[in-house]
Amino acid sequence: MIKNLGKVFFVGLNKFDDETKVMIEKYMPGGVLLKPGVLSDYTLTVAAFKFLNETGKFLISSDHEGGQMETIPYIPSSPGNLSFGFAPSQMIYKYTHMAGSMMRLIGFNNVFAPVIDLLYEGSAPVVGFRSFGKDPVVVADHGIHAMKGYMDSGILPCLKHFPGHGRAKVDSHERIPVIDASYEELQKTDIYPFEKAIDEGAEMIMTAHIIVKGIDDVPASISKKVVKDILIDNLGFKGIVISDAAEMKALSDNYSVEEILKNFFEAGGNMILMGDEELLPVYYKTLERMILAGELSKKLIEGSIEKVETVIGKYHHSESIGFFADVAKKALKFKIRSKLPKKVHVVLPVSKNLSPADTSEKFYEKYEAIFKNFFDVVKITEYEISKGPVIEKSDEFILDIVVDAFRSEEAVNNHISLNEKAPGVLYIIVRDPYDEKFFKDFDCVVTHSMNPISLYETLTIFKEVGL
Amino acid sequence: MIKNLGKVFFVGLNKFDDETKVMIEKYMPGGVLLKPGVLSDYTLTVAAFKFLNETGKFLISSDHEGGQMETIPYIPSSPGNLSFGFAPSQMIYKYTHMAGSMMRLIGFNNVFAPVIDLLYEGSAPVVGFRSFGKDPVVVADHGIHAMKGYMDSGILPCLKHFPGHGRAKVDSHERIPVIDASYEELQKTDIYPFEKAIDEGAEMIMTAHIIVKGIDDVPASISKKVVKDILIDNLGFKGIVISDAAEMKALSDNYSVEEILKNFFEAGGNMILMGDEELLPVYYKTLERMILAGELSKKLIEGSIEKVETVIGKYHHSESIGFFADVAKKALKFKIRSKLPKKVHVVLPVSKNLSPADTSEKFYEKYEAIFKNFFDVVKITEYEISKGPVIEKSDEFILDIVVDAFRSEEAVNNHISLNEKAPGVLYIIVRDPYDEKFFKDFDCVVTHSMNPISLYETLTIFKEVGL
Repeated sequence: MIKNLGKVFFVGLNKFDDETKVMIEKYMPGGVLLKPGVLSDYTLTVAAFKFLNETGKFLISSDHEGGQMETIPYIPSSPGNLSFGFAPSQMIYKYTHMAGSMMRLIGFNNVFAPVIDLLYEGSAPVVGFRSFGKDPVVVADHGIHAMKGYMDSGILPCLKHFPGHGRAKVDSHERIPVIDASYEELQKTDIYPFEKAIDEGAEMIMTAHIIVKGIDDVPASISKKVVKDILIDNLGFKGIVISDAAEMKALSDNYSVEEILKNFFEAGGNMILMGDEELLPVYYKTLERMILAGELSKKLIEGSIEKVETVIGKYHHSESIGFFADVAKKALKFKIRSKLPKKVHVVLPVSKNLSPADTSEKFYEKYEAIFKNFFDVVKITEYEISKGPVIEKSDEFILDIVVDAFRSEEAVNNHISLNEKAPGVLYIIVRDPYDEKFFKDFDCVVTHSMNPISLYETLTIFKEVGL
Repeated sequence: MIKNLGKVFFVGLNKFDDETKVMIEKYMPGGVLLKPGVLSDYTLTVAAFKFLNETGKFLISSDHEGGQMETIPYIPSSPGNLSFGFAPSQMIYKYTHMAGSMMRLIGFNNVFAPVIDLLYEGSAPVVGFRSFGKDPVVVADHGIHAMKGYMDSGILPCLKHFPGHGRAKVDSHERIPVIDASYEELQKTDIYPFEKAIDEGAEMIMTAHIIVKGIDDVPASISKKVVKDILIDNLGFKGIVISDAAEMKALSDNYSVEEILKNFFEAGGNMILMGDEELLPVYYKTLERMILAGELSKKLIEGSIEKVETVIGKYHHSESIGFFADVAKKALKFKIRSKLPKKVHVVLPVSKNLSPADTSEKFYEKYEAIFKNFFDVVKITEYEISKGPVIEKSDEFILDIVVDAFRSEEAVNNHISLNEKAPGVLYIIVRDPYDEKFFKDFDCVVTHSMNPISLYETLTIFKEVGL
């Protein structure tokens, strides 16, 4: 057993469920990359941050570069690096300081930005307007300012993609780009921004899955000549070297897991990124086996673990929007006797803001997906708030979202009459807590909030306590 | 002429266009409330902040309370005050400090929150889960912590709605609620959180459009007994007294503009809020006339102007996402000879992310609305990026959004052939700037960004210079 072996892995999460939690607890990766599958869903984002904060210390990152690549819905959209390249470099500092401050408030401590690749004519659209431009001096200056904006806001920036992805004419997500330029040519161009950023204190750099023929025949990510000789020895980089995603076809089509691991770490790499979380167990177990078999130096890997732990220690903080889940949970009031079945019939009000001082309409839209996350939803019935739900008969247990039943006797009666029409009913009172009095003889939950996180926490508790 | 008379007005903006700019420049209101019509549209939000930062110093506010009322899309959704009422008050401080920090990064310096009304059974849904609960001590404690979270993040909080809106059984947006409780009863309940918040340094309080029969026969907002005698003299409040929105029917159905102005200011009020921007000229001119005619004391109004200016001075800052417009503008490159007509035919690529490192798809969706904001769009044609646009003939001038034409000769030829099929073409190159070389004989703009703000700034410049 190698202590904290997971620290050398950075795992991308496209979903967040029980399987994810088990995987993270088991392998304890050094970094977690929240991808759109989590970030575009508010309840999953909150749940993920809550879980991560409670489980340990991680680098928590996103691909949010601003511009062409934006994955955090809470950060105002940027024109992108190519536009910033035309503005004084103080402007990109201002942007990354703002974006970094927002990332930190949400709960991140790391970001896979800035891109400091140069823009070349005829390049693959993967670069697009992610580059600060074609001039190495402009890119270096703006890249350094971008890096410092993140650092000064408490976010560890990861510069990418060494030794420069700009000349690639194909997308390395699909196949391996081959670059013709000589090392001397690259030193004056693509490598220049990295050299300058290292002089200014860069702490994390991502390597590219490209072959630079003038340096080595193997992809830069696993090339000792690129990583050890140039990046570490020549340029003096002392921070974390992370690979671009291991599942990108430029790498995975051409090398086995063993080859990637051995070559990457022996080349001087410290963390392997996998965008696909299912790869983590495979990579972890392979690495463990290789170390135990003496195929990879234990000391080498321990050096990387220590490096990762040091930088986590520096950037770790415990603030995040995960606390919304705790607040929602504290406000839940349960009065339950029945066990909930797996199959349910959901009853929901027609979505409606109830006053000019009300924007809660948007919340209802999330309910269906949340119910489906926990139950086999056989049927959904909508009702008008002023009338209450009207159904003939239901073969399934009903989960009834109660909104302002007290507004009419008809509504109260219709809610209560569900009991005679179904094998069981759970009333989930999400708005006016005084509605509770109508349901005192029945199973009910009072959430004190219409926010989807309150429904999510309600159903999580049902699942955890097995009610 | 009364100098800076506009400072006593707080105007809500539901749109942002040339008319809005003229109105703000003319009346220079003390406060600007950005409403969903502006906040739900990224380009309008950026344009509004840019304009406000360049035009003067204002209180810039929103109705974003968190929970039931949320209007800023960049702040993660809160379970709402009613849930926070069940959690330690440090939690609501944490929330308002986070939300306030985000507001400040976006550009706000003021917020119409927290609500410190109590929750009563059978109340109008206007209160809902905006209240911290029914216990005055809990509401006071949480209200004060909420207030301090905003203050500590540089945002001026406005506590509302004095002397307590919780007992209202009707929505004051629709008609005037009448409350039966005596002053003594209110002191122990609804007024208690306000009293405590004032002791802790409250700087801005919003009055309610409700009649409290135990105190006065007129609505609280314009009642000298409520504002002057109780809020200012008894409770010792020295900050800004702002009315709830003047167009709310509880007030506007029962009082003329002159009556509202005279009674509000003589009662001790300082700022009148109007959710509807069209009311500003009416209110401004009426107030000016009344002062000149001696119907309202000039000294009284000057006192309010001074008070507002002091608090603006304290909370003003010039950081905002308005700077995205400047960055976008700096990156625009024009090569134009023709004048653009009002009627146009827009040619757009089919929306598509071009790489896993690309989320720009979302940007295209905004283009149509932006074109329509500036032109009479007679027709829209979509094209596949790999093929370029194919049209028979167009009677109108074409605005062609060019994305990665260089990917195929067919695409380049199809873009260029538009010239033979329409009375004129402007090529707007939004992605790869090297596409410019294909259009050197034609009118074109290179934006260096697909972000909608870049298109918005492009069209703004056409409008301003009258090309």
